[in-house]
Amino acid sequence: MTIHFNAFDMVVPVHQSPGLWRHPDSRIEEFDTLEYWTELARTVERAGFSSLFLADIPGVYDVYGGTAEAAAKGGVQFPLLDPQVMVPALAAATTHLGFGLTASVTYEAPYALARRLATLDHLTRGRIAWNIVTSYQESAARNLGLSGQIPHDERYDRADEYLEVMYKLFEHSHEAGSVLADKSTGVFVDPEKVHPISHRGEWFDVPGEMLTHPGPQRTPLLFQAGSSARGQKFAVDHAEAIFVISSSPQRLAHQVADTRGKLLEAGRDPESVRFFAMATIIVAETQDLAQARLAECRDYVDTASALTLFGGWTGVDLSGLAEDDVVSDVQTEANQSALAMFTKDPAKRWTVRDVAEFISIGGRGPLIVGDPVQVVDELVRFQQLSGVDGFNISAAVRPADFERFETFVTPELRRRGLLPERPQTPVTLREALLEEGPHLRADHPAPRCGAGAQREARSRISSAIAPAKSRDSP
Amino acid sequence: MTIHFNAFDMVVPVHQSPGLWRHPDSRIEEFDTLEYWTELARTVERAGFSSLFLADIPGVYDVYGGTAEAAAKGGVQFPLLDPQVMVPALAAATTHLGFGLTASVTYEAPYALARRLATLDHLTRGRIAWNIVTSYQESAARNLGLSGQIPHDERYDRADEYLEVMYKLFEHSHEAGSVLADKSTGVFVDPEKVHPISHRGEWFDVPGEMLTHPGPQRTPLLFQAGSSARGQKFAVDHAEAIFVISSSPQRLAHQVADTRGKLLEAGRDPESVRFFAMATIIVAETQDLAQARLAECRDYVDTASALTLFGGWTGVDLSGLAEDDVVSDVQTEANQSALAMFTKDPAKRWTVRDVAEFISIGGRGPLIVGDPVQVVDELVRFQQLSGVDGFNISAAVRPADFERFETFVTPELRRRGLLPERPQTPVTLREALLEEGPHLRADHPAPRCGAGAQREARSRISSAIAPAKSRDSP
Repeated sequence: MTIHFNAFDMVVPVHQSPGLWRHPDSRIEEFDTLEYWTELARTVERAGFSSLFLADIPGVYDVYGGTAEAAAKGGVQFPLLDPQVMVPALAAATTHLGFGLTASVTYEAPYALARRLATLDHLTRGRIAWNIVTSYQESAARNLGLSGQIPHDERYDRADEYLEVMYKLFEHSHEAGSVLADKSTGVFVDPEKVHPISHRGEWFDVPGEMLTHPGPQRTPLLFQAGSSARGQKFAVDHAEAIFVISSSPQRLAHQVADTRGKLLEAGRDPESVRFFAMATIIVAETQDLAQARLAECRDYVDTASALTLFGGWTGVDLSGLAEDDVVSDVQTEANQSALAMFTKDPAKRWTVRDVAEFISIGGRGPLIVGDPVQVVDELVRFQQLSGVDGFNISAAVRPADFERFETFVTPELRRRGLLPERPQTPVTLREALLEEGPHLRADHPAPRCGAGAQREARSRISSAIAPAKSRDSP
Repeated sequence: MTIHFNAFDMVVPVHQSPGLWRHPDSRIEEFDTLEYWTELARTVERAGFSSLFLADIPGVYDVYGGTAEAAAKGGVQFPLLDPQVMVPALAAATTHLGFGLTASVTYEAPYALARRLATLDHLTRGRIAWNIVTSYQESAARNLGLSGQIPHDERYDRADEYLEVMYKLFEHSHEAGSVLADKSTGVFVDPEKVHPISHRGEWFDVPGEMLTHPGPQRTPLLFQAGSSARGQKFAVDHAEAIFVISSSPQRLAHQVADTRGKLLEAGRDPESVRFFAMATIIVAETQDLAQARLAECRDYVDTASALTLFGGWTGVDLSGLAEDDVVSDVQTEANQSALAMFTKDPAKRWTVRDVAEFISIGGRGPLIVGDPVQVVDELVRFQQLSGVDGFNISAAVRPADFERFETFVTPELRRRGLLPERPQTPVTLREALLEEGPHLRADHPAPRCGAGAQREARSRISSAIAPAKSRDSP
């Protein structure tokens, strides 16, 4: 058994822990320098992480109070730099580390994003993942040229076609060996091996050839994190790694099993997809020091900032309430369901202060507090109960909590042989995480081989995994 | 007197010199690795260049023969990586070098591009320029979601509004000192100093705040290269540095003087704008060796590839002609004017072979061949006759010609004191090139201070430079 770790971060002052930038150990005020991120990438590589996973949003969180004021004041995912342009520099500073890049399919033409992602795959030698998001902010839609958001399920239908275009560009436009660079014959690219994709669809028309030849992975490793039913279907149709969030391992176990079942129904090997759970770790030499550090962190919780994040995620504005107001007393049913997103116990009477504390220190995922042995015990227990393959680690104090992971958690993980081994020669991120080849598996639904060959590949896989499937049959 | 040099390049196998990738010194088959570009950036920094200027196009050159076949075979600006994501890595590998980035205003929302450019300005500590292009390829328009190109002059009208949005985002949304990161007061960004830009226009609606606080330069240094009358007006309205191309210094002198006159009419100090002429240098220890190298380069000219570039630039397909056909005999008037773009002597009877050779080895700008003293003599003469401030140097053999520049030309430039001095502490690219502050000048038309203050600034500048203006008055 091994545990994969990704560092879950964002090029902002506050990612997941509002207020914690005020902790004395925080150096996140350097977030707009390349040096900060280069050092962080080296830290998490030394700590044994598989990737640095960078979240992104294309807008400002302006639901709380109806303005961007609280987001600005608290540095809540604002100001927000573009993570994509940073990645080749971080790759140059590291050897094995992968880079998860969040990019929305809502605001950029697939032809342009495909070129950028392929470029990143080239420049990192195949060390990137694409976290596919459809985006959910009104503020982004308005600033990026739409009159409002595309309705939720329609966004996913459009995203399906977007992915179809991306697969055609990544997988079908340039055959293997298209780049010859043969000085003797004068042929740089074999024109016989380059094909226009001739895509005409409901949302996109893309007649031409991919501008860039494919990188080492062709399609970047595909990450997805949708939690709605439609989002889960999208993950089943596309994702190779799925990011899940719950502080309850039992609830995650249900979600993971349910998704693996749907993967099977879709003709994909359910064990080929990796699941990562968000987790936050407060670790110290001893249990007492770890608890003291947790208490210290709680001193920095900033309610307005936490509710800014809550508002951004849920669309629910709690700015009219006082700290002691019980959210479930005064909010509508929609708000109850928003609240349920964050809690393992929706029946609890949550005050505004509870919500803020919960959000501010790792609340959405497990919060693991203890000495190195306790932390690793809990990681192992959580992984076994939930069935996930690893964790997206969120830091409360940045970058200190990643440095503390390296100092305290990594040696204990190594002692127990729980970190994945790294090959002498660096491999692609897909190879490192899926322990397979650098390209999409044959049972992935990408239209790699034309519709006929694809159906054939699917039926081949279905029969190979039929015994497992029969368990679900009546 | 000093001469500024920019390295004019592109993340492709063939940029300006079709066929020359087959030269034995060429290592351009490594164009899809970060190491190639990192080494190139270090080379041109050592050589005394001010910036690495990266061209870009969003489509494939498919006019020649009506397909992308010749572009693929000859590697003619295809495959084409995304230059933007490379820049922070190159900045990390250098200290003073600037980076000119070509980005089109036609296919991306200004809100997204502004964030990316501001991010690059942060990560490079103010060392970027934005080369503003409106794009001219049918192939790009079709693949990026338009049914065809926006008509030429309308593209520029739209680009004017695009720039207006960018100025509001870069200059007006975040006041100086908006980022406090004050742990004691808990204020990361002062909300009083962040403003939604409330832009409503003919082409764009952008109500919100800039996502990223401004980088060291706020607006990146603005480059432009439009050669049409409308393009020149756009340059006068926006550019701080203008890229011009002609092998005739006299013709450039006319163009530079004409543009400086129009800058004056527009209320801008005409001496505040820098002009750069494209030039190609073939240099060796002796004149004979340089001529031998030129002859050797000519052996690698590839006619189909050259005509692919010609077709892409002009929209004129010469694929039906033989090498000895005279282009001006068989082509229409429109084609004559396309041909005139490239030649100092439009009356000459150009054969297809002539056109190919002309295009392949520096033809559009001056081709300077000789020993170090001759080359520097010619650079000085060309600069004095044309009135440009420096050169965008295109390499025929890549990266060898930039390495040869460092070996042969740089020492001679240094001996004569012709290279700009570099400050001990690195400065922004605007400071390095314009020898002024890091931000847009007060007489730049950006709506930095609101419409009223802007009018005031313009009238202040106009009176300051009135004596010069009177020369043009009747």
